[in-house]
Amino acid sequence: MTHIDLNSDLGEGFGRWVLADDEALLSIVTSANVACGFHAGDAMIMRRVCETAVERGVAIGAQVSYRDLAGFGRRFIDVPSEELTNDIIYQIGALDAFARLAGSRVSYVKPHGALYNAIVHHEAQAAAVVEAVCAYDPRLPVLGLPGSAWLRRAAEAGLTAVAECFADRAYTPEGTLVPRREPGAVLHDPVKVAERCARMALGQPIEAIDGSPLTVRAQSICVHGDSPGAVAMARRVRDTLDAGGVQVAAFGEGNRWN
Amino acid sequence: MTHIDLNSDLGEGFGRWVLADDEALLSIVTSANVACGFHAGDAMIMRRVCETAVERGVAIGAQVSYRDLAGFGRRFIDVPSEELTNDIIYQIGALDAFARLAGSRVSYVKPHGALYNAIVHHEAQAAAVVEAVCAYDPRLPVLGLPGSAWLRRAAEAGLTAVAECFADRAYTPEGTLVPRREPGAVLHDPVKVAERCARMALGQPIEAIDGSPLTVRAQSICVHGDSPGAVAMARRVRDTLDAGGVQVAAFGEGNRWN
Amino acid sequence: MTHIDLNSDLGEGFGRWVLADDEALLSIVTSANVACGFHAGDAMIMRRVCETAVERGVAIGAQVSYRDLAGFGRRFIDVPSEELTNDIIYQIGALDAFARLAGSRVSYVKPHGALYNAIVHHEAQAAAVVEAVCAYDPRLPVLGLPGSAWLRRAAEAGLTAVAECFADRAYTPEGTLVPRREPGAVLHDPVKVAERCARMALGQPIEAIDGSPLTVRAQSICVHGDSPGAVAMARRVRDTLDAGGVQVAAFGEGNRWN
Amino acid sequence: MTHIDLNSDLGEGFGRWVLADDEALLSIVTSANVACGFHAGDAMIMRRVCETAVERGVAIGAQVSYRDLAGFGRRFIDVPSEELTNDIIYQIGALDAFARLAGSRVSYVKPHGALYNAIVHHEAQAAAVVEAVCAYDPRLPVLGLPGSAWLRRAAEAGLTAVAECFADRAYTPEGTLVPRREPGAVLHDPVKVAERCARMALGQPIEAIDGSPLTVRAQSICVHGDSPGAVAMARRVRDTLDAGGVQVAAFGEGNRWN
Repeated sequence: MTHIDLNSDLGEGFGRWVLADDEALLSIVTSANVACGFHAGDAMIMRRVCETAVERGVAIGAQVSYRDLAGFGRRFIDVPSEELTNDIIYQIGALDAFARLAGSRVSYVKPHGALYNAIVHHEAQAAAVVEAVCAYDPRLPVLGLPGSAWLRRAAEAGLTAVAECFADRAYTPEGTLVPRREPGAVLHDPVKVAERCARMALGQPIEAIDGSPLTVRAQSICVHGDSPGAVAMARRVRDTLDAGGVQVAAFGEGNRWN
Repeated sequence: MTHIDLNSDLGEGFGRWVLADDEALLSIVTSANVACGFHAGDAMIMRRVCETAVERGVAIGAQVSYRDLAGFGRRFIDVPSEELTNDIIYQIGALDAFARLAGSRVSYVKPHGALYNAIVHHEAQAAAVVEAVCAYDPRLPVLGLPGSAWLRRAAEAGLTAVAECFADRAYTPEGTLVPRREPGAVLHDPVKVAERCARMALGQPIEAIDGSPLTVRAQSICVHGDSPGAVAMARRVRDTLDAGGVQVAAFGEGNRWN
Repeated sequence: MTHIDLNSDLGEGFGRWVLADDEALLSIVTSANVACGFHAGDAMIMRRVCETAVERGVAIGAQVSYRDLAGFGRRFIDVPSEELTNDIIYQIGALDAFARLAGSRVSYVKPHGALYNAIVHHEAQAAAVVEAVCAYDPRLPVLGLPGSAWLRRAAEAGLTAVAECFADRAYTPEGTLVPRREPGAVLHDPVKVAERCARMALGQPIEAIDGSPLTVRAQSICVHGDSPGAVAMARRVRDTLDAGGVQVAAFGEGNRWN
Repeated sequence: MTHIDLNSDLGEGFGRWVLADDEALLSIVTSANVACGFHAGDAMIMRRVCETAVERGVAIGAQVSYRDLAGFGRRFIDVPSEELTNDIIYQIGALDAFARLAGSRVSYVKPHGALYNAIVHHEAQAAAVVEAVCAYDPRLPVLGLPGSAWLRRAAEAGLTAVAECFADRAYTPEGTLVPRREPGAVLHDPVKVAERCARMALGQPIEAIDGSPLTVRAQSICVHGDSPGAVAMARRVRDTLDAGGVQVAAFGEGNRWN
């Protein structure tokens, strides 16, 4: 049976501030990218998200970031490699404390925001994040963009590199994301988005932005939770996958820490 | 043979800023209270201090604090219990990542600054920190002031409570610290301080501030590293203990994570 | 003609995070307590709120706070007086840059959260905030709780002390606020809240929590904007005041910086 | 008579942490680049430095930076223009509060660290900082590297652009700085550095790194204060200038805020 993982960014509030509806999303996704305090997230939120994730069988991933609360981790920072490596280790360690407390472990690592984008091409930073994961626990899979320096270097270093696709983003005929600033880059119709996810999960071609058929290969689909209607769209994606004979499950299910 | 632990606050720089001479102190003490990023310390410093500590056989303790870089953790903050518990867990988890990477583990917990002082009497905060240690790992000993709510509650919760004394502080006849603002509260003569430490380690009475004899019972002596002459004084304390037939060793030596 | 000021906390987002509907509130209130970056608020938000406030004729106040983004300024911090004074000056100065740029000035100072509460009784901190205002500009009025050490000391120092009442809070027969944790402390019916505000503005007695009549004297009414239904309640309060023959205007209207 | 300004970075501690000997430097330089809290500096330090600067007749400049305490402002951050503009305005406003309180005003703006380096070439960020100064007060001169986009755009916008040279850095034959990583980039001999400064002040050629003569035109010389021996070198530079018939004075002396 075909299976796919659904991941989403979670725990991205801070103190008084709330972002997404973490509760609702944790009933939909199978992998939670939990913010670790550097772009969002604090100890209260991290604990609560980890506990709820474990209750619902959702895998806990470290959503690591540049140290930038004011910019929500969305601004490239030219952090020297060694500093970046250690900042990542710090974040994974902190989250792991709450994951363990909840009876689980950090199960994977997914960089956030500007770091996610930077390590598509920035070799030194990609290497620095890979080194952090290898140093912390080389059994941890990493999640990212297919074709990125990040996933290539992770695989070269012996890590399990997991490719993800995006539920609500248009693709070029070459299989890369249409940049957000271009028309049609973001899809808004939950029904179409959900059908598209089902096709991607089943290995069937979707339509690229120019209408040509494109087969996207990914082990996880990223759904967003921080915009109006986001939870409803994620819910629709999950329901459509369930109804379409796709087994929705965390990508590493069953083979972690054993 | 009599033995005693020597502990000191370490890794209390931040980014560009340096505080004490960590390198020198790590050749003197047997337990390093490592700042975890909330009052001082960053990932680079934490990694370096952990690595050097392990090289020299120094035990790594989590020097946990209120979240207050601007105040260096020296200002009481009325943090609700649940937040405080989780902030402590976050800090221990982050430090433990670097301790493990260096081949060791966080071996004990010692609160810093205003938190240290608060939990002498503040029952709710004392309980919150105890809960954090129990949640993270109930095998972790905790370090603190004899007679404090913190050590009492820790012992009640089944934690190993380790009492410390201070190398350079005057004591009242009742065995409490003379407040810093009073004359004679801080001792400055390295020779006298070192002799006093040897007497405390050997269970011999020292002179209280009024000249009366006082026996201070502690398993660890705290030496400071962040003032001029501090390293020289710490060195003298260590040498005097070594010469005086006291075995200087981490208090938990030999019975951790086995 | 009777007049009253309506004030509300504004600009309390941070980076990616939004709190209240600042736009809507700026069409309702006459005084905006603008967060200055210590408990909430950043330079982008401060600029935007100041510009909109000036467009709509809303007075700009500095909503000064402890330095505590993680706790949203809601945790008492035992800041030494001199540090507190300077932290307040820093915040007023930063906000004044944006107020001037928008063609106005900071027109008053209102402490936020735990600082607001602390200086009801904490004489040293009350004095420290008063000193900050006197140092920055002794022509600035200050806003606070009637009967507080803060307003008393402000008046003693020659500042204009402005008393505020709360739209949605129950009062004891003695005229103090019913603590939030007690039943009935917070009023939820917009119609009743609005009528009550009109009575307070007109100097007519309202019902204290025990049903006895109570006359509350205040020059400003504080409405909240950060809970569901808050904007609708504030709108109702404003409309009821307008319809009831009360002139709603900033308390210092017409006599600032001239 | 020939005159020159001597500027140095000051107030770059934070909370418990001290960097340079501000006291000593304020007796040597004529312009103080005061950190504003984003890469270093806090309200206590800003107040103290401003007060001492005014006592000694030293001009106060806003040493503005990216928001990056952990990186000391030394890491390029890809901040969007509007955010950068507002962050700069915030910093100038905050510092101006302390400058006014001390009886002076912010007299110029000098970007710090990675921002200083970025706006040599980064047109969008250079424009954003220029816009901030124009918005805050277009009478404020700005200090920077000759030939930079920053000074060019500042001049185009009608600001007074002041060029600085560096006391202890080697120059290429083309008049640009030899990158720090190259041999000979930093000069260490106080006597030679001081003589070189005197030649630059007098418009006489110095030796470029290849030995060829180079005339450096600048209205201010930057001396550093944060390394061992830095204060002694700065002292020597000042004394040599004084003895050599160069009038050392703030560049805008006598024509500010009048």
